[in-house]
Amino acid sequence: MSTIAENRGEPVTPVTPAVDTAGVAALLERGRTLTTPVLRAAVARLAPPMDAVAAYHFGWIDAEGRPTAADSGKAIRPALALISAEGAGAPAGTGIPGAVAVELVHNFSLLHDDLMDGDEQRRHRDTVWKVHGPAQAILVGDALFALAGEILLELGTVEAGRATRRLTAATLRLIDGQAQDIAYEHRERVSVAECLEMEGNKTGALLACAASIGAVLGGADDRTADTLERYGHHLGLAFQAVDDLLGIWGDPVATGKQAWSDLRQRKKSLPVVAALADDGPAARKLADLLAADAKKTDAEFMDFDEAEFAARAALIEQAGGRDWTSEEARRQHATAVAALSDVDLPERVRAELTALADFVVVRQR
Amino acid sequence: MSTIAENRGEPVTPVTPAVDTAGVAALLERGRTLTTPVLRAAVARLAPPMDAVAAYHFGWIDAEGRPTAADSGKAIRPALALISAEGAGAPAGTGIPGAVAVELVHNFSLLHDDLMDGDEQRRHRDTVWKVHGPAQAILVGDALFALAGEILLELGTVEAGRATRRLTAATLRLIDGQAQDIAYEHRERVSVAECLEMEGNKTGALLACAASIGAVLGGADDRTADTLERYGHHLGLAFQAVDDLLGIWGDPVATGKQAWSDLRQRKKSLPVVAALADDGPAARKLADLLAADAKKTDAEFMDFDEAEFAARAALIEQAGGRDWTSEEARRQHATAVAALSDVDLPERVRAELTALADFVVVRQR
Repeated sequence: MSTIAENRGEPVTPVTPAVDTAGVAALLERGRTLTTPVLRAAVARLAPPMDAVAAYHFGWIDAEGRPTAADSGKAIRPALALISAEGAGAPAGTGIPGAVAVELVHNFSLLHDDLMDGDEQRRHRDTVWKVHGPAQAILVGDALFALAGEILLELGTVEAGRATRRLTAATLRLIDGQAQDIAYEHRERVSVAECLEMEGNKTGALLACAASIGAVLGGADDRTADTLERYGHHLGLAFQAVDDLLGIWGDPVATGKQAWSDLRQRKKSLPVVAALADDGPAARKLADLLAADAKKTDAEFMDFDEAEFAARAALIEQAGGRDWTSEEARRQHATAVAALSDVDLPERVRAELTALADFVVVRQR
Repeated sequence: MSTIAENRGEPVTPVTPAVDTAGVAALLERGRTLTTPVLRAAVARLAPPMDAVAAYHFGWIDAEGRPTAADSGKAIRPALALISAEGAGAPAGTGIPGAVAVELVHNFSLLHDDLMDGDEQRRHRDTVWKVHGPAQAILVGDALFALAGEILLELGTVEAGRATRRLTAATLRLIDGQAQDIAYEHRERVSVAECLEMEGNKTGALLACAASIGAVLGGADDRTADTLERYGHHLGLAFQAVDDLLGIWGDPVATGKQAWSDLRQRKKSLPVVAALADDGPAARKLADLLAADAKKTDAEFMDFDEAEFAARAALIEQAGGRDWTSEEARRQHATAVAALSDVDLPERVRAELTALADFVVVRQR
């Protein structure tokens, strides 16, 4: 058992491309620097108290309204949207409204999902519904979604209309994915295909939109936009596969989540469904344990000690769920990078999108 | 006391314009007939179970999934959107995507508001969160909002982009209005001005959008669209004033709500805030009663018998709250109709918009 427990803190890297760490950090930093002031100005348009509730959610103020410098996420989406504009030969700045709109939709979904899922913590802080109540989580989520459309449409261009349409389609898929996620929680068996479809909707669609929206605003044709979407979709699936690995074997200090967090929430994530698809003794034992777990109340489940989660993690690993998910991340990474060859892109843009894809699969949080 | 109790069923009509009942019925029916199939096709795009939850909300199926012909609302907004298209010289059908999008936004807000307000009944049926749970009410609301954008933007025209932008701005005001409504519930005093601003956001903004969106889709210039918005805004305020009268003195059989429903919910509606703005003995007695009510638990409040609500209604009436609200409905009606003279409109369109305004202030439900 101790090997597994120690193992928790080990890198979950499924593949080790030579990541240009400084380059990626600079891209993420540029995305954050150019996007945040516009995002803050958009949020400041909201009437009180929604502006403050949103500012709390984004980590700009604490629960008492004092300015903070909390962790506001990895900011991969803004970085993608700016590079995407350069993919169409436009300046990075052309992608800013797209980056802001995608961030607004992403955070609208976080506000609503945290409430629906009853999650009390996000990015090391209490969630909005926990601090400001369910009504504010619903209202401010709605307002961020509406703001996303406003930010794009006030550009008043044909390109902005196309970008909004793509963002709306991605949002509908995001909502579908959350609906599937909720439905699967109550199902005894979920297939690997169903899990991948859900993750494609819940994570892939918006990353695909982030990767193409800058190009759309920059006047790219549909073929270029669709190719960048395909890159973003597979990047999203790689991202989610790594997230699912981190959700079981991630280091709590790095992820900001409890150890074994996905197992505590009885999530049917990729390593779990892949393990259950096996027919060996570990998979059968895991299936029996999870079936018994499903009958437990949340309170009974809370009483579990670390060893019980470690035992489940070990069975998932023995049944091949960990390896399969690592390989899946590698496959999706490769497909994402390969998609970039289907269209003419400036060489620097291709290199940057590849570096971001590399980063996504080696990240530890 | 008995006079007040009997009074409850009496018409609350603040003004009696000569309503062309048959003409208005035909306009509402046309709106419903042209819009419903497109609305149903839009909702059918949602993945299960969201399509069924939405169909339940719209009154197309019952909680067991059997087709029903439940009351799906007065359908004033679709009727307005179609006449609005004709206001720009376009065929009524040009307004259909606008009518559908406005209905989708209206129903998104109902789904979320019912959950936030804890309302268990709407249109004589259990609300969605009550039947399908809070998560479905949130998710399906989100999905209807996203669908509204999709329905408009897939038209792919410049006009559709402008229409979506106006709808988005209206939606942000709608959300502001709900935030104000929630905030006011916890405040001891709300001014008449604050109440009117809240109602302008919560009801006026979307009716304003319904009244202009068809014209925008039909290629109207901003001046025409803005004038139709102004008509719709004041129509919305008249509509809400009548709603506030019906919420206290309406006939439960007609409204589908409990007798004295707004008083049961301790709503600070227009008759209440107008009465409290008075400084006579009735207003002071009302203020004392409502201050004591505010300290009661919901359970204690539920134990109230009819006579206690009747007493509050009588004090509101004695302090002038009922008359003031009736006059306000008349004022807003007059302002709405007068706005129609600010721009060139086909004579039939002007007559139809006037007839709808007349209907709004004489309706009994």
